[in-house]
Amino acid sequence: MKPVKIGIIGAGRIGRVHAENLARMPEAAVKSVSDLFADDSLREWAGGLGIPHVTKDYKELMNDPEIEAVFICSSTDTHVPLIIEAARAGKHIFCEKPISFNPELTAKALEAAESAGVKLQIGFNRRFDHNFRRVRELVSEGKIGETHLVKITSRDPSPPSPEYIKVSGGLFLDMAIHDFDMARFLAGSEVVEVFAQGAVLVDPVFAELGDIDTALITLKFESGALGVIDNSRKAVYGYDQRVEVFGSKGCLTVSNDFPNNVVLSTEQGLYQDKQKLFFLERYNEAYQDETKQFIHSVLNDTPVPVDGRDAQKAELIAHAARKSLELGRPVKIPND
Amino acid sequence: MKPVKIGIIGAGRIGRVHAENLARMPEAAVKSVSDLFADDSLREWAGGLGIPHVTKDYKELMNDPEIEAVFICSSTDTHVPLIIEAARAGKHIFCEKPISFNPELTAKALEAAESAGVKLQIGFNRRFDHNFRRVRELVSEGKIGETHLVKITSRDPSPPSPEYIKVSGGLFLDMAIHDFDMARFLAGSEVVEVFAQGAVLVDPVFAELGDIDTALITLKFESGALGVIDNSRKAVYGYDQRVEVFGSKGCLTVSNDFPNNVVLSTEQGLYQDKQKLFFLERYNEAYQDETKQFIHSVLNDTPVPVDGRDAQKAELIAHAARKSLELGRPVKIPND
Amino acid sequence: MKPVKIGIIGAGRIGRVHAENLARMPEAAVKSVSDLFADDSLREWAGGLGIPHVTKDYKELMNDPEIEAVFICSSTDTHVPLIIEAARAGKHIFCEKPISFNPELTAKALEAAESAGVKLQIGFNRRFDHNFRRVRELVSEGKIGETHLVKITSRDPSPPSPEYIKVSGGLFLDMAIHDFDMARFLAGSEVVEVFAQGAVLVDPVFAELGDIDTALITLKFESGALGVIDNSRKAVYGYDQRVEVFGSKGCLTVSNDFPNNVVLSTEQGLYQDKQKLFFLERYNEAYQDETKQFIHSVLNDTPVPVDGRDAQKAELIAHAARKSLELGRPVKIPND
Amino acid sequence: MKPVKIGIIGAGRIGRVHAENLARMPEAAVKSVSDLFADDSLREWAGGLGIPHVTKDYKELMNDPEIEAVFICSSTDTHVPLIIEAARAGKHIFCEKPISFNPELTAKALEAAESAGVKLQIGFNRRFDHNFRRVRELVSEGKIGETHLVKITSRDPSPPSPEYIKVSGGLFLDMAIHDFDMARFLAGSEVVEVFAQGAVLVDPVFAELGDIDTALITLKFESGALGVIDNSRKAVYGYDQRVEVFGSKGCLTVSNDFPNNVVLSTEQGLYQDKQKLFFLERYNEAYQDETKQFIHSVLNDTPVPVDGRDAQKAELIAHAARKSLELGRPVKIPND
Repeated sequence: MKPVKIGIIGAGRIGRVHAENLARMPEAAVKSVSDLFADDSLREWAGGLGIPHVTKDYKELMNDPEIEAVFICSSTDTHVPLIIEAARAGKHIFCEKPISFNPELTAKALEAAESAGVKLQIGFNRRFDHNFRRVRELVSEGKIGETHLVKITSRDPSPPSPEYIKVSGGLFLDMAIHDFDMARFLAGSEVVEVFAQGAVLVDPVFAELGDIDTALITLKFESGALGVIDNSRKAVYGYDQRVEVFGSKGCLTVSNDFPNNVVLSTEQGLYQDKQKLFFLERYNEAYQDETKQFIHSVLNDTPVPVDGRDAQKAELIAHAARKSLELGRPVKIPND
Repeated sequence: MKPVKIGIIGAGRIGRVHAENLARMPEAAVKSVSDLFADDSLREWAGGLGIPHVTKDYKELMNDPEIEAVFICSSTDTHVPLIIEAARAGKHIFCEKPISFNPELTAKALEAAESAGVKLQIGFNRRFDHNFRRVRELVSEGKIGETHLVKITSRDPSPPSPEYIKVSGGLFLDMAIHDFDMARFLAGSEVVEVFAQGAVLVDPVFAELGDIDTALITLKFESGALGVIDNSRKAVYGYDQRVEVFGSKGCLTVSNDFPNNVVLSTEQGLYQDKQKLFFLERYNEAYQDETKQFIHSVLNDTPVPVDGRDAQKAELIAHAARKSLELGRPVKIPND
Repeated sequence: MKPVKIGIIGAGRIGRVHAENLARMPEAAVKSVSDLFADDSLREWAGGLGIPHVTKDYKELMNDPEIEAVFICSSTDTHVPLIIEAARAGKHIFCEKPISFNPELTAKALEAAESAGVKLQIGFNRRFDHNFRRVRELVSEGKIGETHLVKITSRDPSPPSPEYIKVSGGLFLDMAIHDFDMARFLAGSEVVEVFAQGAVLVDPVFAELGDIDTALITLKFESGALGVIDNSRKAVYGYDQRVEVFGSKGCLTVSNDFPNNVVLSTEQGLYQDKQKLFFLERYNEAYQDETKQFIHSVLNDTPVPVDGRDAQKAELIAHAARKSLELGRPVKIPND
Repeated sequence: MKPVKIGIIGAGRIGRVHAENLARMPEAAVKSVSDLFADDSLREWAGGLGIPHVTKDYKELMNDPEIEAVFICSSTDTHVPLIIEAARAGKHIFCEKPISFNPELTAKALEAAESAGVKLQIGFNRRFDHNFRRVRELVSEGKIGETHLVKITSRDPSPPSPEYIKVSGGLFLDMAIHDFDMARFLAGSEVVEVFAQGAVLVDPVFAELGDIDTALITLKFESGALGVIDNSRKAVYGYDQRVEVFGSKGCLTVSNDFPNNVVLSTEQGLYQDKQKLFFLERYNEAYQDETKQFIHSVLNDTPVPVDGRDAQKAELIAHAARKSLELGRPVKIPND
């Protein structure tokens, strides 16, 4: 078995996570990393992982015939042109979410990948989480009968910087988009209507930048089931990621992951360390697993587990949620 | 200390619960029970509790000058006339929820009690639950800072009979009304807008009777906080009663009550007995406590813990929820 | 059905608990209470429960032909003479644990009850606890296969007074005796050997009074299973009462009972109120249930659920534990 | 920073785990692996991890002046001679537990390492577990005051093969030795007396081979605290690894690690997947961490976190436990 040769575009936090995970996989070999700000420190890090080539110019990766697949980990505005270019170069693509902030551009990226016949996987890492994956399995096995309600709680430990907020695309496209994907994943049904309420309760800077920091979003699924997502940019007790699926024969609930299981009982009460704070820590295994499955899809020429269509659907829900918030009423989502 | 003399109108399930709880209280003495269908079996039960008088005619209670307070446990359509009659007779009143299905009638009942200067407590027993009361305490103590989100899950173990559904007033006035009260109780703020979604997923009989069996209701509070309630008429695993309050400094969650804490670990996995099935079992202590607090309010001439105004507010939210469901959009609730 | 007429000897804390529980039962009627220190306050309390007769002289109860059963709730040194006297008077007996601190006296009490053909139930209330009873049921149903290990944790929230310690019979006969009974109950097998280690770690007053405050006791059962009990006179976080039974097909564990299920998550971690502090609160239902089952045994002439033999066995283990502690080695327990 | 050059002796399961963990560490480089049964498959695995040299002859590692540290992962009987040889060659040593089955041999190994001035770390991986490490931290911080009791439950998911049992050294030296180390680690005090009870309840093959499969061991610590360990070779519900430390100001408990947090509630009750089955899965992070700390001790010339003395102490307790089982009484352990 010859390892899949990989190029990574963008060596920020998430690009490095993917590179380190790929370095542990005998089935994959990272050949090249490109980053606009490549410097000695990046080169040293790459060397430690056995990555032979570092460049500022992503075109070197695109033009390298040995590279079979690229990981697009650069900023969101570069996703669509890079997908189109990689597709034309015949390379399989792993791209971070969202594809774009513009439904037409996203559609173009999908077309490019489809017509080139390359695989396009999107970084909805939470589908690979040990908890959520198990919920989906049990739903699929019919353990709770018909799904009536999907509930998702998704709260960040602390708000991003104003600089990030500005270019984030807003709470719906930046944060809730993971939950829109999770809702479709867990319900196994498309969303046909969304009603979004939003508020600025955490920090007035969100209002100044035309964004919100708190959201309560209800969903109607094609199946007749209902859904609700609540988001906050700041849960002081840590990264709060829970789901619940209720159905005719039962209910599935998921609690958070904790750094340990120690309970301290004293005269003051019971105490436990708070939950995992950082998304890379919480979704550590999920990141490894999504990468592994992408490599296996390339190696075995099987469908990727989360494709461009999944990204497109989640983005459409996000756009509809924004519109609902503006209009103060539910908004329908077309599903063909 | 002379015990408060009580008359109970309506000796169905809930009337009997109140009578048995009062029988254990040295501060109260049930003097009389009236029920349209009073028979030997009722008389025997009353005798066992030391209740000296049983009658088919509630007027005997109203006319008994010794009786200081009445418990109105008859059907909802009798609540308003009985409240007005009791108020005129100068008796303090404990009345089951809702007061009525008609906001104008409810307003009349409130006026009657107010102008007569008698106490009027409503049977929102869940406020006295060991879990929910503790959540409210911790919110009041500022433990979670400013409240951002209130979440309530309230699911019955099995649907009522079609006969009951017909006269129930519908899911919002019969079932969710407890949750509307709980939302106000936990948020410490009035509801200003409601958006209700409903579905018939449990049993088509609900549709035939013009009702729903599943609901997802979002709330906006005066304080700016958001709220969400989910209801189902059938949770096969038992009576599902949970709340969560999320705020700027923390989050409060409540799990269900279970009949025991035994965990069985086997080769197949971990097993626990399912939660308490029956509302009288789950809210056993809450029923005792609401009765005790009513008696103490009468004895010490202090305000009742849940008054007519609370009932009126919850009923107005229920009416608005029904309207929202019909219109398919959020509906505002006037708060003076 | 005519209620069983009851006399209660000793109206201290536990005598009152039994009286109040009996007062709620239509199948039982407390006719008389005797207490050496009977006064107006006792008479008032009795009146509130509808108990018609209060006396300082227990002989009045013994001589009352209407009284069918007595509850012996006086100090331990009076148990044996009172059992013998009640048995001779043909009265069924409910007696608090232990019967005595002397195996020969205990044997005499058993003989007296047996030869008189009256029922003798011992107040091992924990067998009726919702948790431990469920563990026993699941063990009996074979859910964990053959039992290999029984583990019992039993810690008091705070030490008794020096006055009480002096007359308590020592940790093994006063406190661990409940656990010796629980061990036999859960294992369904007799104890054949005991090794007890003890220490004074809580308060030197225990050493001054020739007692210990901390114990670690291992047991060998006739079945081949092993057991371990740990005791402390002071668990600052509340009454700590847990068991575990491990077997060839699984394991049963029990956690403590808590006053509520609320979890508070903050920046400092997760917090829960500590467990129930007081044994009457924790074993509230168990006390009700043991009384009910005794009354039903009398009414239906069926065997009592915990008999004199059970008390005798537990006492013999306690005596052997004391001997083991003195000798510093395991001690065998004869079982016929 | 130049990475520490490592040689690994013995490429069985545990040798491979260490090699894979070291391969991810930029501070370490595995230069050579020796295994008596080295073949093409081992060479391929080594290649995948970038290990340049594989040999059947461990002497090549000993004689390689570049290799600074060796991991001794071969069978227990080779530990002492290899430690002595490595010490003489001036190499730092990481050795799996136990050092030997013979206290005098173990003493010789310790002397060799000491006189050569090389570091000797023992593979008591559980000290690095996220749960147990946190318990130790909280004990050290005084959160539970003075320690009164240490309880350890340690049960394997299934018994080893008869071939392994034969050479294992018996339950005390093979399995409980981890718990003896954990007891010292958690109590922060030496064990001065041990009483061990054993039984064959899982499989008669243990009796045939002169071993036991179930043990209940009590400990007395120098500090006056007591301890208890229970072991079973077969917990059908998975690897059961829990500890509890009880003290004057509180109690610390640890539950098992589970593969996910999903709870399924149905009409039959609540269900959860059983705990992690396999020790490499459960102690995954602990293995990584012990290796990392050893490398850092070598790099920074600081003391190793678990040294030869720790191994020696645990082995002495194991020998005393065996003697106690034979004699049927407690056995003292000399501590200088």
